[in-house]
This record gives sequence, C-alpha cells and structure tokens, in this order.
Amino acid sequence: MRTLYELAGADPNRRFSPYCWRIRLALKHKGLDFEGVPWAFTEKDRIAFAKSERVPVLVDGERAMSESFDIACYLEDAYPDRPSLFGGAGGRAMARLINGYADAVVLSGLSPMIMVDIPQHLAPVDQVYFYASREKRFGMKLDALAADRDERVIAYRKSLDPLRLTLKKQLFAGGDAPNYADYALFGGFQWARCVSPFHLLEKDDPVYEWRERLLDAFDGEARRALGYPV
Amino acid sequence: MRTLYELAGADPNRRFSPYCWRIRLALKHKGLDFEGVPWAFTEKDRIAFAKSERVPVLVDGERAMSESFDIACYLEDAYPDRPSLFGGAGGRAMARLINGYADAVVLSGLSPMIMVDIPQHLAPVDQVYFYASREKRFGMKLDALAADRDERVIAYRKSLDPLRLTLKKQLFAGGDAPNYADYALFGGFQWARCVSPFHLLEKDDPVYEWRERLLDAFDGEARRALGYPV
Repeated sequence: MRTLYELAGADPNRRFSPYCWRIRLALKHKGLDFEGVPWAFTEKDRIAFAKSERVPVLVDGERAMSESFDIACYLEDAYPDRPSLFGGAGGRAMARLINGYADAVVLSGLSPMIMVDIPQHLAPVDQVYFYASREKRFGMKLDALAADRDERVIAYRKSLDPLRLTLKKQLFAGGDAPNYADYALFGGFQWARCVSPFHLLEKDDPVYEWRERLLDAFDGEARRALGYPV
Repeated sequence: MRTLYELAGADPNRRFSPYCWRIRLALKHKGLDFEGVPWAFTEKDRIAFAKSERVPVLVDGERAMSESFDIACYLEDAYPDRPSLFGGAGGRAMARLINGYADAVVLSGLSPMIMVDIPQHLAPVDQVYFYASREKRFGMKLDALAADRDERVIAYRKSLDPLRLTLKKQLFAGGDAPNYADYALFGGFQWARCVSPFHLLEKDDPVYEWRERLLDAFDGEARRALGYPV
C-alpha cells in the first residue's frame, strides 16, 4: 500500500494543498491504490524521514519522496503500463512549463485572494504558524492582502487566457482527456475550493466548465472533498 | 518545393512576424526545403488563394494553409518520419497551451513596447495601414503606448516566470532539444529582435540564455535574420 501525506486542516478531512491534489489525481489517473494521511503545517517531524518539510510526501514501498513534479515523474517511470500522465517525452517536458505557469500564475495569483480564508480551518497551533509565515512572506496582514480581491479577481481571470485559449480547441490541457498538465492547473482551483467561498470564475467561462469536468473526474473525487460549492 | 509567405518590411529581407518565425523554424526542424516569399501587410490579394488575410501561409504541393498552429499540426502529420515537433500526443495537446501562453503573455506583452518601432521598417503604404489598424486596436498613438516601456519591461520580465522556472530544470521547453513549444515562444523574441533595439532581457536571465540557444539553432537561422543585435 502506498501512503500519501496530505496537508489537512483542523478537520482531517479538509485536504487543501494544491500540490497534494496534483498527486492525489495523478495516483487516481494511474489507478494506483494509496492511503491519504492527513498532515498539519507544524508536524514537520512526521515527514522528516522523507527529508522534506513540505507535503506531498509519497511513500511507495521502500521509497519516500517529495516535490509534486518529481513524484509525477516517478509514477510515470515506475508504472509505465498504467495510463500515461504526460503522453510521451514531449508532454513530459512541456508539462514542466505548464506546471511553471500553474505555480507562477494560477496559484500565485490565487494566494492574495484566498490566504485570508485559510486560518479559520486550521488548528490553533497551525494558525499561529500560518499567520507568522504568511504575513512575513507577503509583508502585510492577510485581511489587508485580500482587501481588494473583488477588483483583483478581474485581472486574475484575464491571467487564465492561456488556458482559456486552449479550451476553445480541446476539452483538457492534455487533449481529449485530462493528464498531469490538467492536474497541475486544477490543483490551484481545488485549493481555493477547499478553503474559501470566494467566487473565482464566472459560469460562462470555458475555464469554469473545464473545472467542472475535473471536479467530476474519477467518480467525483475532487467534488466529494470537504470544501465550498463553487 | 514548398512556399512560405512571410511578413516583410520595406526591405524584403526584414521578416519580422512572430507567427511566421514559428513556421520557419518548424520547417527547419522537420528538415523540409522551402522558399520564403516576402509579403507585405497590404498585399491581401496575394494570399487570397489560401482563404486567409494573414501570414504565415504555407503552400505544400496542392495544399495551401494558414494559422501557425494548424500548419505545425499539418507538418507533424504529413511528415511523421521527420523529427517530431511535439514529441507525442501529450506534447501536441500541451503545445497548444504553451502556444496560448506565448500569444496571450509573451507576444501580447511585447506589443505595447515594440509596436512603435515597426512603422519605420515598412513601405509607405504599409505604414498607413499599420498606424490606422494598430492605433484603433490599442486606442492610442503608438508612441504614447510605448512611453512607459522602461517600467513596463520590469513586469514583462516577471511574466516570463513560467518559462524561467522551466529553464532551471531543462535547456528547452521541449526538453533537451527545442521543439514547437520553443518556436511558439521564441517567435515573439525574434519579432522584437527584427524590428526594435529595445532591451528586453537581462544577460543573467535564463530566458536570455535560452534565447541565445534558439538564435544559434539550425546553424544560426534566426541570428542571421535582418534585425538588431540583442
């Protein structure tokens, strides 16, 4: 049995890390069994064995590993007979750029809008850690950071144009069916959905419809997760 | 012999369209012979046979086609034994998203900074067309559009983070060697280089180094082109 350490809130069923969602869906895509184990921000000692301070951490037999993109590459190489996460060597290389776009634009753009909604879902000890580390990173209080989110979301939607242009021609970043490129991008939206009621996408947006398809994937794996209806 | 209609300036050797560069490099990548024919903005009648008002237009035997991504897909399918432009089905799907990022971010972000430098390279009749159509599109004079480019370029460089993050791990968007993902992105920088002396990238930027590698590709095909040293 594989074990996936996933970031969780005070309720262990609130699994909200965008990076962990990438790997949860990658494991589903590969059809590999695993146990998802809740892990909280301040439990660094529990994943020290994997030489990481962050999740996801995946344990597969003797191997322990971290970093979502590295884990995806491991799964692709270790289970070549299962459905491909990248669709070939070109896809693996390009998935890294799409992962970069997901990190630098999709997730990074979400942060100032949804950070403020996270602490209420954390245990007290993790709230202390979260406020301290995030207010240091952003150089301001989280409610100040989110103060202009109603305006900020307009530019945020525009920053999704690369994905939107793609969805005019195909159902998924991966083509007719989702692959790791989609999971890399979707992780951000699932992160938001798990912690924040803030309205990110308009219903007539192709990105909204794509998100719906990902929420329905693998028998509604992501839609079942504890979060807010979107 | 194939024919590629390419946007050109008053000097027919100034071939500056980012979309045409994508296809010029794709043809080189496939090792296919072609003649590049200069075409100017106001010569719509010369490409009407291809049912297009824009270049690139590629004529391959009986077939005439336009739209750079469609042409790339045609080349991949028509010449499957030549080096792949996408590296598999996953790469083809993901290349569309990278093409979307190239269009919506890389090219779109360059436009306000370099548009002002284009007319001086055009024949008088094309200057008239260019000023009228672009000032309508942007809603202002091109020199006003470019007035803040020294500040704008800072945010522009930041918008290249998805590519920059990728280049920490691999030499090209396509992996160890360039493929269509790289040509889609590079077309924008080559466009700028062909028309504008404006300094876009800093020398210690991994994106600068990547651009150097693309300028050197195919025996310096892009570096030989009439333009400005960068």
